[in-house]
Amino acid sequence: MNQTTTAPTTIEPHKTAFNPPPKPQDAGEKPSPYPDRSIIAGLRLKFEQELFENVIPFWEKHSPDPVNGGYFNCLDRDGYVYETTKHVWLQARQVFMFSKLYRAVEQRTAWLEMARSGVSFLRRHARRVDGRVFFSLTVDGKPVSLQRKIFSECFYIMALAEYSRAADDQSCLIEAQEEFARVWKWAFDWRQVGRPVFEGETASQNLAVPMILLNLIEVLADGDTNEYRQEIDDCIRRMLLHVDYERKVVFENIAPDGSFINSCQGRHLNPGHAIEAGWFLQHWAQRLGREDISTNAIDMVRWSHDLGWDKEWGGLYYFLDYCCFSPSQLEWNMKLWWPHCEALYGHLLNYSITRSPEDWLRFMHTQTYAFSHFPDPAHGEWYGYLDRYGTATHRFKGGPYKGCFHVPRALWLCWTLLQRLEKGLS
Amino acid sequence: MNQTTTAPTTIEPHKTAFNPPPKPQDAGEKPSPYPDRSIIAGLRLKFEQELFENVIPFWEKHSPDPVNGGYFNCLDRDGYVYETTKHVWLQARQVFMFSKLYRAVEQRTAWLEMARSGVSFLRRHARRVDGRVFFSLTVDGKPVSLQRKIFSECFYIMALAEYSRAADDQSCLIEAQEEFARVWKWAFDWRQVGRPVFEGETASQNLAVPMILLNLIEVLADGDTNEYRQEIDDCIRRMLLHVDYERKVVFENIAPDGSFINSCQGRHLNPGHAIEAGWFLQHWAQRLGREDISTNAIDMVRWSHDLGWDKEWGGLYYFLDYCCFSPSQLEWNMKLWWPHCEALYGHLLNYSITRSPEDWLRFMHTQTYAFSHFPDPAHGEWYGYLDRYGTATHRFKGGPYKGCFHVPRALWLCWTLLQRLEKGLS
Repeated sequence: MNQTTTAPTTIEPHKTAFNPPPKPQDAGEKPSPYPDRSIIAGLRLKFEQELFENVIPFWEKHSPDPVNGGYFNCLDRDGYVYETTKHVWLQARQVFMFSKLYRAVEQRTAWLEMARSGVSFLRRHARRVDGRVFFSLTVDGKPVSLQRKIFSECFYIMALAEYSRAADDQSCLIEAQEEFARVWKWAFDWRQVGRPVFEGETASQNLAVPMILLNLIEVLADGDTNEYRQEIDDCIRRMLLHVDYERKVVFENIAPDGSFINSCQGRHLNPGHAIEAGWFLQHWAQRLGREDISTNAIDMVRWSHDLGWDKEWGGLYYFLDYCCFSPSQLEWNMKLWWPHCEALYGHLLNYSITRSPEDWLRFMHTQTYAFSHFPDPAHGEWYGYLDRYGTATHRFKGGPYKGCFHVPRALWLCWTLLQRLEKGLS
Repeated sequence: MNQTTTAPTTIEPHKTAFNPPPKPQDAGEKPSPYPDRSIIAGLRLKFEQELFENVIPFWEKHSPDPVNGGYFNCLDRDGYVYETTKHVWLQARQVFMFSKLYRAVEQRTAWLEMARSGVSFLRRHARRVDGRVFFSLTVDGKPVSLQRKIFSECFYIMALAEYSRAADDQSCLIEAQEEFARVWKWAFDWRQVGRPVFEGETASQNLAVPMILLNLIEVLADGDTNEYRQEIDDCIRRMLLHVDYERKVVFENIAPDGSFINSCQGRHLNPGHAIEAGWFLQHWAQRLGREDISTNAIDMVRWSHDLGWDKEWGGLYYFLDYCCFSPSQLEWNMKLWWPHCEALYGHLLNYSITRSPEDWLRFMHTQTYAFSHFPDPAHGEWYGYLDRYGTATHRFKGGPYKGCFHVPRALWLCWTLLQRLEKGLS
């Protein structure tokens, strides 16, 4: 990595322990901007406790539906079920999360059973004969709504793929692979999922599609770089079209040739999305040994954070307009949990590669903001929605778009990476 | 009206002038809660100035598209066109507004010409052969998007009907009547406009549909109570199903038999909508001489205001959940311009009927909040979106859902009614 040339050599654990305490600061001597082992260890413990004591127990306690299987995903602050509709994105993501914990953390039977209940519910109810996956279902699985998008399908595949490895269930993997083949055909032409195209529409590409697919392949191929190589390359190529190196910005919507569209749609920035896309890309850059892509991914996270951070009140804006017009979305200035979750891991991953104090500072600012605003120690899990000033606007822990996913995924990824950093093995 | 039994007798203008000044307040004597003529006259002047000096000139100056006809409706604070997409709701509503001003205020050639330009653009581009009306068009009229809803059609009809009377153009009226016949068939079964219905969906009715249709008929029939009598009765019957007399609340979504649905959808409250529905209904109650419906309409406005008003920071919430869960919409606690516009006229209309000091107070609180938060004297028109605390979150004056409609319509309606109150003729 070109960024790693300035990184310090790895400090062996025992060396730290026997090092003399640092001298008091002399005039002209700057304090080290690098975190020492005690800082890393403290953070590792903080993420560990938050994940296993505050977040996962909330979902274990309140979400299971003992009658129909699957999960209640609309949970009030204290876990009360205020709505029984089952949103497929969140059913599937919770399956993924518990399967992942079972595989990567500890083979707890309860975690596998939690995942199994969701998979079984989804396989019984979520997918239509033609392969389309519903967006929401009644408590007992009857279809409620279907989007003219492919994301329900993507999360359905993600759930089945991760569960198949946790449970060693080949039939789930085969179904996931078959569904992926369908989704890949639909992915870049949504007319095939019923979305009409009109003459006056500006031809455009949305970052969400290739980034979600790239992350999905990571789960589906379990990190194997050969299985979906052509699709991986295509997703990466498409994602990089959104990175404008001259303007130092990641556009959410671009013309098919990558050029800038001067309209609300084209100027639209979604910093959380761009940061998430950055670390999705970085995972593949590392796997493929592609230093050039790694550099791009690092920039995507940095630029999006620096542009998206609210210098007055802190936190990441939800949306911005590149030319500083008011975004038309009413919620543009709110601070949502998930962009901060993505930023936590995005910056820590960047730091693990670059060892740059700037990346460390971005991580520290994000984690300070996130931990002082989102967690609810009284009842567990995180609040999801704050106004610009940092006050929670919504009491619930689970809703149509928030479930057991972004918080535990980010905490688990950061916790894992902090363990590696702590051991000096990154 | 049963409410009018407590109304004071009309005070002739000269009597006020020669009356002795009121005595200083004695202990036990309460000040009169009724506005005197000077208060009404002051308000009349304020609404008049706001409409003709601050609001209408903004649209006259910045919105016309001299090349393609129609209007730029995405206008920044100072009128700068930040997006050229033409949103049909707003094109049509601007036609309605200028036609109305031409008919009801003054036959200014410029106003009729403004309306004509919009009508001509809409008739050329907005309607498809099958009668469906697009939601948005490019600057030169190519279709961009189509909703699986009927509201573009409704506003298209409203535009043509009002313009037909302003311009004495019979062909517009005939087209409006033909389009209405189509829309009426689609209105209560959106499968006919392409919206699928799934097995698990809760059968429900939305207040928006009958209320918009009832207001549309008011424009289309130009107040004639005979022309669409069956449709009028049907809309009124459907609207009143949303009024829960026991709970004293207007639900946005109800079961087909009018019963309460205990879900986010069923608990959803939209105070601005319910207030608007109230005055739509009151207009017909007055025309039809239906005291019972008038009482219902008065209650709809009162209950919705009292439930929707933010007692801590002022202004009307955008959405609420009847059972006090957090609404799932991110923007629920924002203060939008249009509910306040509807409330201004809703309360003044109530007061003109009831002469109740409570209705007058609701009007005064709303107008104080609205005039101290929304207008922009520097550039004209009103801001559209405030956060809970009353700070503008969006700079623009026109966007995909805000144009030349709610502000001038409310100002014109209130100004007209204040003139009547001033003359003691209400």
